Amino acid sequence: MSDLLVVNIGTLATPIGNCARGGADQGAVRVLHDAWVLIENGVITGVGEGAPPAHAAARRIDAGGRLVTPGLVDAHTHLIFGGWRNHEMALKLQGVPYLDILAQGGGILSTVEATRAATEEELAAKARLALDEMLALGTTTCEAKSGYGLDTQQELKQLRAIRALRESHPMDIAATFMGAHALPREYKENREGYIDLLCQEMIPAVAAEKLAAFCDVFCETGVFTAAESRRILETGKRYGLIPKIHADEIDPIGGSQLAGEVGAISAEHLIVCPHGGIAGMAKGGTVACLLPATSLYLGATFAPARDMVSAGVPVAMASDFNPGSCPCLNMQLVMNLGCLRYRLTPEEVLTAVTLNGAAAIAMADRVGSLEAGKQGDLVIWEAEDLSYLCYRMGSNLVRTVVKNGQTYSNTTRAH
Amino acid sequence: MSDLLVVNIGTLATPIGNCARGGADQGAVRVLHDAWVLIENGVITGVGEGAPPAHAAARRIDAGGRLVTPGLVDAHTHLIFGGWRNHEMALKLQGVPYLDILAQGGGILSTVEATRAATEEELAAKARLALDEMLALGTTTCEAKSGYGLDTQQELKQLRAIRALRESHPMDIAATFMGAHALPREYKENREGYIDLLCQEMIPAVAAEKLAAFCDVFCETGVFTAAESRRILETGKRYGLIPKIHADEIDPIGGSQLAGEVGAISAEHLIVCPHGGIAGMAKGGTVACLLPATSLYLGATFAPARDMVSAGVPVAMASDFNPGSCPCLNMQLVMNLGCLRYRLTPEEVLTAVTLNGAAAIAMADRVGSLEAGKQGDLVIWEAEDLSYLCYRMGSNLVRTVVKNGQTYSNTTRAH
Repeated sequence: MSDLLVVNIGTLATPIGNCARGGADQGAVRVLHDAWVLIENGVITGVGEGAPPAHAAARRIDAGGRLVTPGLVDAHTHLIFGGWRNHEMALKLQGVPYLDILAQGGGILSTVEATRAATEEELAAKARLALDEMLALGTTTCEAKSGYGLDTQQELKQLRAIRALRESHPMDIAATFMGAHALPREYKENREGYIDLLCQEMIPAVAAEKLAAFCDVFCETGVFTAAESRRILETGKRYGLIPKIHADEIDPIGGSQLAGEVGAISAEHLIVCPHGGIAGMAKGGTVACLLPATSLYLGATFAPARDMVSAGVPVAMASDFNPGSCPCLNMQLVMNLGCLRYRLTPEEVLTAVTLNGAAAIAMADRVGSLEAGKQGDLVIWEAEDLSYLCYRMGSNLVRTVVKNGQTYSNTTRAH
Repeated sequence: MSDLLVVNIGTLATPIGNCARGGADQGAVRVLHDAWVLIENGVITGVGEGAPPAHAAARRIDAGGRLVTPGLVDAHTHLIFGGWRNHEMALKLQGVPYLDILAQGGGILSTVEATRAATEEELAAKARLALDEMLALGTTTCEAKSGYGLDTQQELKQLRAIRALRESHPMDIAATFMGAHALPREYKENREGYIDLLCQEMIPAVAAEKLAAFCDVFCETGVFTAAESRRILETGKRYGLIPKIHADEIDPIGGSQLAGEVGAISAEHLIVCPHGGIAGMAKGGTVACLLPATSLYLGATFAPARDMVSAGVPVAMASDFNPGSCPCLNMQLVMNLGCLRYRLTPEEVLTAVTLNGAAAIAMADRVGSLEAGKQGDLVIWEAEDLSYLCYRMGSNLVRTVVKNGQTYSNTTRAH
């Protein structure tokens, strides 16, 4: 792997460390001017201002005075799925009630059917197109969940597709087991039986094959209760899976409090997170992983991001890419919404989509900031500074993505 | 100019005619399957299903079963301006009051200063980058307003930059004189004097040089009253300029009613449009040109699009691209918001961003639908149908843009 020296960086903006907790930390971004970054064997070995080091062997990229940030970290996606749900959106707009759509085989269970019908290779091929586009839009690390299989073999198939992508695509991918995404049709009248299956068969199987680092649960009215979520997450912990939790998206039924109690590394959505939940996450060191594009897509309200920052909860933002509630993988739009709807500053937004995203998937020792020892993952933006990056909307501002020291130009093709 | 035959179109979706008025018309989209389009000398000479015509000389493009629609028409942009206002957004997020920002030289008057400081060539060069990106995102026709010069020579400079772009860029551009965009600093204490200048000097000069087809006014509390707007638009009409009006964006001070009364071809924004205004527009045949990305950007409410459709007002949607309230030129995001926030169907949205956009700039005889006799402007989308195009968010779904029979691939680079 050849070495790379990025020079003539007008503004280099990066958070520092392994996680930004607490009020001022969220926006404590280091800014360098007339800067350079040296990447050797895919790892950052130097960052500085002024004259770059002499390194004859390194390939040089001239950033042309532009902005450079760490590669974006998208810490919450449902990357692996069969089909799309565009026809369902069209039905909703025609006024067809959601329950009728469900009765017609729509909703999440239609994605389960399409996912079950696809092979591991088909799922990986479809997801690969999404990963290519994410990379072209500036994302260099992402998380990917299972949760559309809802039986042991089908969940393993999704996770194996993630493993295949991790081994063959430049994107770093953190894998999350989310068998507790919904109650499958077969267990409609037997929720206890499905939770037994999750705890006694699926989690052990996932752990045995080392297919996931995390275990996630959809803790929500009509899905899994807080008590059920606790049982599933505690079981996952015994098998070495770090807890994550979809909490307080629609109803505050105790998910954020549970996140703090079980030591979840992150809690997701948190649209209606109560004060007690914020306090619990702050105490438990849980990252709040906020998904503003989903709020936009659903016409929901937006999570109380400022309250979380003020309370000392580290805030991350992610895309929630999925075929139902957020068919969007563009983290630049997420950044816009971080400013426009959460009223976070551009600096706080940057931390949310880099370092704290990395912290939400236990990868902040390797990615999320531009510091010696971290991976050579960065973006050269068509922007003069962070405020411009957050201000322009609807344009792909990527000029060049550097991933592990390899360069990728912006040649976005949607899939 | 070589001829072009687009074949193997899985779904061709297009409105028909010169303007879609009234309830069902807005969504009355013609859908063909296994379709083809023949373009000769830049003009559509045939559209059909099944076997394409024999035309040995024509270059063939295989759409690969994808969706084809007319090229998008962005009927409302403030394309020509100096500078950006990213630092102002950052200040707002830090809680600096807008009046303080204005006092520091921010707000629209800062764009006026930057625009005045730029040469015609500099303004055109900057706008050319935006046009390139718009084309790569599927827009083949747009409108462009002056309104950041606010004195005769400066307004003429902006309009001459538009003329230069029209003559040198593939984009079709409709020019609108909008000297009545704000009251310039020099006339702060003499609004009557500025309106005299508009009516007695600027409008005659614009007309003499044939630099614009339309005259637009910002009818709003603190900008121009309905009576002042009427005087300016009536003067424009006497000089052959077709009226347009920014109406009911913040306060309903009579702009939409005035639109109907003066026979405005379009009224813009209409966020707080009252029932009387909707009735007036329906009676006057005024196109409602809605700007949902601006509502998103400002955190405002969304215009009552459904009420307008029901009342027989033709609804168009546009980007409002400008450096203050909407630094977004992406019509695909506008289409998303048309479904998500206006609750329009994908068919109604398509009409809004093609045919009715064309009607709003008096170009529907040439663009806005795929019919024999119209220009060869179309988009091949990475989509199977209209619902998918409206459903995916944040991705550039363009595969190929055809403009006047010439092809442009999606190689989006933001500027």
